[in-house]
Amino acid sequence: MTRPESTAAPVRNVLFIMCDQLRADYLGCYGHPSIRTPNIDALASQGVRFTRAYCSAPTCGPSRMSFYTGRSMTSHGAIWNFMPLSIGQPTIGDWLRPRGVEVALAGKTHFAPDLDGLQRVGAQVPPEAPVLEGGFLVVDRYEGHANPGPGHPYTKYLRAAGYDVADPWSDFVIAGEDEAGRPASGWEMRNAHYAARVDERHSETAYTTDVAIDFIRRQQGRPWLLHVSYIKPHWPYIAPSPYHAMYGPEDCLPACRDEAERDDPHPVYGAYLRHGESSAFSQEKVASHVKPTYMGLVTQIDDHLGRLLEALRATGQYEDTLIVFTSDHGDYLGDHWLGDKDLFHDPSARIPFIMVDPRARPDTRGSTVDRPVESIDFLATVADAFDVPHTDHVIEGMSLLPFSRGGAGAPWRFAAVSELDYAFREARVLLGRDARRCRGYMVRSDRWKYIYWEGFAPQLFDMQEDPMELRDVASNPGHAGVLALHKEYLFDWLRHRKTSLTVPSSRIVVSRDTIEPAHGIRIGVW
Amino acid sequence: MTRPESTAAPVRNVLFIMCDQLRADYLGCYGHPSIRTPNIDALASQGVRFTRAYCSAPTCGPSRMSFYTGRSMTSHGAIWNFMPLSIGQPTIGDWLRPRGVEVALAGKTHFAPDLDGLQRVGAQVPPEAPVLEGGFLVVDRYEGHANPGPGHPYTKYLRAAGYDVADPWSDFVIAGEDEAGRPASGWEMRNAHYAARVDERHSETAYTTDVAIDFIRRQQGRPWLLHVSYIKPHWPYIAPSPYHAMYGPEDCLPACRDEAERDDPHPVYGAYLRHGESSAFSQEKVASHVKPTYMGLVTQIDDHLGRLLEALRATGQYEDTLIVFTSDHGDYLGDHWLGDKDLFHDPSARIPFIMVDPRARPDTRGSTVDRPVESIDFLATVADAFDVPHTDHVIEGMSLLPFSRGGAGAPWRFAAVSELDYAFREARVLLGRDARRCRGYMVRSDRWKYIYWEGFAPQLFDMQEDPMELRDVASNPGHAGVLALHKEYLFDWLRHRKTSLTVPSSRIVVSRDTIEPAHGIRIGVW
Repeated sequence: MTRPESTAAPVRNVLFIMCDQLRADYLGCYGHPSIRTPNIDALASQGVRFTRAYCSAPTCGPSRMSFYTGRSMTSHGAIWNFMPLSIGQPTIGDWLRPRGVEVALAGKTHFAPDLDGLQRVGAQVPPEAPVLEGGFLVVDRYEGHANPGPGHPYTKYLRAAGYDVADPWSDFVIAGEDEAGRPASGWEMRNAHYAARVDERHSETAYTTDVAIDFIRRQQGRPWLLHVSYIKPHWPYIAPSPYHAMYGPEDCLPACRDEAERDDPHPVYGAYLRHGESSAFSQEKVASHVKPTYMGLVTQIDDHLGRLLEALRATGQYEDTLIVFTSDHGDYLGDHWLGDKDLFHDPSARIPFIMVDPRARPDTRGSTVDRPVESIDFLATVADAFDVPHTDHVIEGMSLLPFSRGGAGAPWRFAAVSELDYAFREARVLLGRDARRCRGYMVRSDRWKYIYWEGFAPQLFDMQEDPMELRDVASNPGHAGVLALHKEYLFDWLRHRKTSLTVPSSRIVVSRDTIEPAHGIRIGVW
Repeated sequence: MTRPESTAAPVRNVLFIMCDQLRADYLGCYGHPSIRTPNIDALASQGVRFTRAYCSAPTCGPSRMSFYTGRSMTSHGAIWNFMPLSIGQPTIGDWLRPRGVEVALAGKTHFAPDLDGLQRVGAQVPPEAPVLEGGFLVVDRYEGHANPGPGHPYTKYLRAAGYDVADPWSDFVIAGEDEAGRPASGWEMRNAHYAARVDERHSETAYTTDVAIDFIRRQQGRPWLLHVSYIKPHWPYIAPSPYHAMYGPEDCLPACRDEAERDDPHPVYGAYLRHGESSAFSQEKVASHVKPTYMGLVTQIDDHLGRLLEALRATGQYEDTLIVFTSDHGDYLGDHWLGDKDLFHDPSARIPFIMVDPRARPDTRGSTVDRPVESIDFLATVADAFDVPHTDHVIEGMSLLPFSRGGAGAPWRFAAVSELDYAFREARVLLGRDARRCRGYMVRSDRWKYIYWEGFAPQLFDMQEDPMELRDVASNPGHAGVLALHKEYLFDWLRHRKTSLTVPSSRIVVSRDTIEPAHGIRIGVW
């Protein structure tokens, strides 16, 4: 798919906003009936909203590495959280920095550097080298979900703001107080309805937004990409006032599940049902207690996004900035009797994906696209927006710019693929699997969601007849052709993972005609 | 497959001998009726000879990268000659050097370093760093097949020996003289019967052997692996006296081909038939003119191998040294109407593979193994012989030591896989293929040779009924099940390429039980 020359004007900046564990359907523009997300909805009305966007892996680490490399989990190889990304994998900064773009981070990455690899090749790099930080210049790296430690800027910020304890994160940011004034940790979901003790202005979402705004205000002239990477609405589920009490159970989407799902479940799904977070979330009282807080955390992000976008406008940069709003994966929140994420039902694998392109053709503004889109398309899009040459031997995604600039009539992929490796999860122990045989692959085509499981039968959902994915119809003999078609697509997909990373396609020339005669080599001459 | 503890004594050294373009069936021990290869035959009688060994790619560069990485072509990604090997790919030296083993090279590698990758990660490495040389300490690197240049040690050696011209390689090493005393270049196959002008003692095979012997004599105490990598019997086909006249057409194997092969050939095979080297070699006069010289070059290697092994014995190291004798691929020599290599017929894809293990169980000496073996097994074997830990997330091959030490009754692979990417060959132009859609995969099981071609129908040969591979039976409706079985194996093989290179299997632990509580994370607690 190529876009017309006339609309190929490069953008100046990219604002790459990612939430953590944000389900697409918990946004107003994605159809949630009661949540208030006016700023995100406004982005959708100005840009293109992708209705069938899937993360390349419904787990934080591998999903993010797919965003940063433009490559599937199989290709980049970082199959779990904080698994080092091989030094053989170029990241976003490697592509954009040579184009003069500052590639900066405010927030979470889940990236771990390949220190063994650097040592192996004899590389000695300075402490803040981009290769140690996922390709980013770190404005503020905040991984969340745990005490950031005494030396972290957020801890210092909290102390300076008056939270003068050893671990202000645990005591204030993720802790509330019960009616008797006793500490109530956000790690316990029964406490999700309490207000976090931290003042909203000092919460994680506010802090990361402040850092991002400060970056935006400081920019003068040089193109930049800023990855604003919020750690919410990821657990622990606790929100500062007023977001803790903004929604009630009546505002939540009803649980999407059916008793029949637990009868003779697929082995991998069955193992996940036995996980602790699933046992908890499968109780209606838990899900309906947590969801309002989850919603509050989403609206909080939306409010701060308003501040962020206002800073972009106030500094005169809005008209030159490509904005992408997305998430690394979703959250089951009790749907399908599950908690957390990893598996491939839409609550987990589907992500919001909104792109506001300053060079868009006006008639694409506010449009929706239902083609299958993947996380890996993000980097392909950004590389396209900056006219980065020679990416197609490494980046596996497809540029989304044709959807905003015209040219979207060309062939698109048949299906979106997402991957899971549950080697690090309890499911592996429950199923007694070898650590190297725990892979699952989702193939989501227009109508079907097919899942190939290593060592187990496949799953199949008819997304047209059963959009809630309540009936696995893989064993229906009438669907043998559908299974075969999707398996063939997966076979094709596997063959075309890009592993020849060192030579661009443009340098693939027929050597016997070109290179070798220059060295005096003559083959097969009588 | 695990070998018994009692026989797990590590070896001290490895002598890794590779020829270039040596067909397995042009050795006495592999059944050639007239060629004289007594030293190689003696290795076979002392070790294990693998009768169904296949190179991972029947092209110099990718084949060698598979030997050096223990990984398939798809996995290491260096799909053509001198395509840089990504810095993400550990090589033989990376595995053995930490065990105190000197990993040295005398001869050819076809390796190119990933300079762009090193620059990308900010690595500044010294000029002779192993990462620039395929993981080897270079004793002498000699890539052959072209004038090595005025600064190369072999050129200096030739000049010092009296060949005092600008390019002694072209004028003496690969040149003969016709009956009238005129220069007769080895690049022209009509000249294959002339003696090279170089004295045999100064030929490439002699020179590389001298370098290797010198290395062996200098070793004192420290374990070593020496890659003695001959560039012969690869073209240009011209041999020094007396090897130029050692054999006649009556000594050669008859051409293995059938007129029917050229009727309606498979498209890829058909394109290769149109290559220049195929046009030449398909003429009987060419093949029968070249083969005696090819045989002479093989016997020359055998003679020098005698010197090399004698040096090993004389220095008291023979009893502690694992010896592997192999080749990077074969040579069609006119079989199937083809020249050179690349495709998957046995003359091209099958390789000699002999392993002499100093710790072998006596009853395995002189044995043969007909299990499917691949180039990638070499590094797995060596890593096993040196007891290198934590290799199984990177090295894809299987150790062959059970075949010499016992324990070989365990499950083995169903088939050997070999790969070709003809993006750099004329065939791509002839077929009008996209440069990224030129892959073929051979799956050689006990009875069948199945070939999957990107964009074309598969091929199938019944190696039991048609061991000369003269009849492609893929279109026989009775073989649908065979095709499906082998395709399924390829699908499985693709899924299990190792791309998660940064974490050994031993470090894959179920994180929710182990890692995360250490950080105070509690998921799904009510």
